[in-house]
Amino acid sequence: MCQLMGMNANVPTDVMFSFTGLATRADEHKDGFGIAFFEGRGLRHFVDHHSARHSPLAELVKRYPIKSDHVIAHIRKATQGVISLENTHPFQRELWGRYWVMAHNGDLKNFHPRLHAAFQPVGQTDSERAFCWLMQELAKAHCRVPSVAELTHTLSELLPQLHSHGTFNMLLSNGEALWAHGSTHLHYLLRRHPFGRAQLQDDDVSVDFAQHTTTQDRVAVIATEPLTRDEPWVAFAPGELKVFVGGELVAD
Amino acid sequence: MCQLMGMNANVPTDVMFSFTGLATRADEHKDGFGIAFFEGRGLRHFVDHHSARHSPLAELVKRYPIKSDHVIAHIRKATQGVISLENTHPFQRELWGRYWVMAHNGDLKNFHPRLHAAFQPVGQTDSERAFCWLMQELAKAHCRVPSVAELTHTLSELLPQLHSHGTFNMLLSNGEALWAHGSTHLHYLLRRHPFGRAQLQDDDVSVDFAQHTTTQDRVAVIATEPLTRDEPWVAFAPGELKVFVGGELVAD
Repeated sequence: MCQLMGMNANVPTDVMFSFTGLATRADEHKDGFGIAFFEGRGLRHFVDHHSARHSPLAELVKRYPIKSDHVIAHIRKATQGVISLENTHPFQRELWGRYWVMAHNGDLKNFHPRLHAAFQPVGQTDSERAFCWLMQELAKAHCRVPSVAELTHTLSELLPQLHSHGTFNMLLSNGEALWAHGSTHLHYLLRRHPFGRAQLQDDDVSVDFAQHTTTQDRVAVIATEPLTRDEPWVAFAPGELKVFVGGELVAD
Repeated sequence: MCQLMGMNANVPTDVMFSFTGLATRADEHKDGFGIAFFEGRGLRHFVDHHSARHSPLAELVKRYPIKSDHVIAHIRKATQGVISLENTHPFQRELWGRYWVMAHNGDLKNFHPRLHAAFQPVGQTDSERAFCWLMQELAKAHCRVPSVAELTHTLSELLPQLHSHGTFNMLLSNGEALWAHGSTHLHYLLRRHPFGRAQLQDDDVSVDFAQHTTTQDRVAVIATEPLTRDEPWVAFAPGELKVFVGGELVAD
């Protein structure tokens, strides 16, 4: 199974700790990794078809404190599509003058939608097909970038159609909000004042967030499985869509 | 003035030497850098709004031998648009199931085309507007990915319209070919057997390409100013469009 990780915060925050936790799971997920960081409207997008355990790019992400308010990461165990750069999540497109980024964990069966508009897959995965279809349907539903609430409403109609084809744990962001859709395995955590110490689930690494934060900071972390041992992670119900803005959960 | 660098080769080749040469010019070009590497249909796209002289990302690019057949790099001295990630070249879009990448050196005056299709700028530069307009016009001219020769023909009609608005030195690639348009400052070099030693123009670094190549290798390098001292760089004439495929010049 692939592993997803997302972060949404009210002030630009680095994900070196969480990404280190994610990358320790890369032994079983050796078919590439990717991570996208929004910085305002801009985007940094790193993909590598080497394992996050050994890639020099992954080392950079663990050590270079890139501050971002929306991050989406993915480590891949290929189920559909060969191991190559064009099949590595997250995928990226532009719609309404905003970059959009999506990563998927799961497997869609018999999903071959009619892609008649401006969004065509470059690789061969079911995930990129699903992303292109989502972008196409969002573009049809709204003529310019709508509010987060309107987008959430449209997504709540579109995502069940994807989910009906199989397992569809997904993270999506346009740099304004982060949408997370649970299917089989997805958890979230809200970190806020008073911040404490947290220890990675799979590694002997801990951090005291109180030393790196102010009382105003709010951070949401979303991951396939809880990344830390001692924090109150909440599981998504199957088919649940949650929206994170400014490090907070804004809608169910 | 910004600095452009492109590379096109018949076998995947790294650009550590050329990028090192480019980055030495970053003292005057401190407003960010970007580099895109095609690997087959896939794309690695690194952007940073810090100088290529000091960025950890630039260090990675100088040291990690990423092998690619099409590379486009840019170091920026801002003339239009604030210094931010979304204004950092090269820009990237998807069209016909292929990624497209473009970087521009120059300044377009009074260029505000009607962008009525699926390609909208995320940032504020004239360069990204020009790229979106090019994608829009290519999408109107062909219903699916045409041959390199057909694309070249269409581009030879579109590029003069951009050039008429000002300085337009440009590199464009879809991973199948690299198109270069000269306006004021652009040079190219074809490296092939017998390979020899080359020394960077601005730095005391040299490389003996004979030790890193086979007799079949062909590499084209395009740059704002010649990157090496002892090789036969050729200047573009104003308005000249050249197309590189497999490390060779295929059309004038």
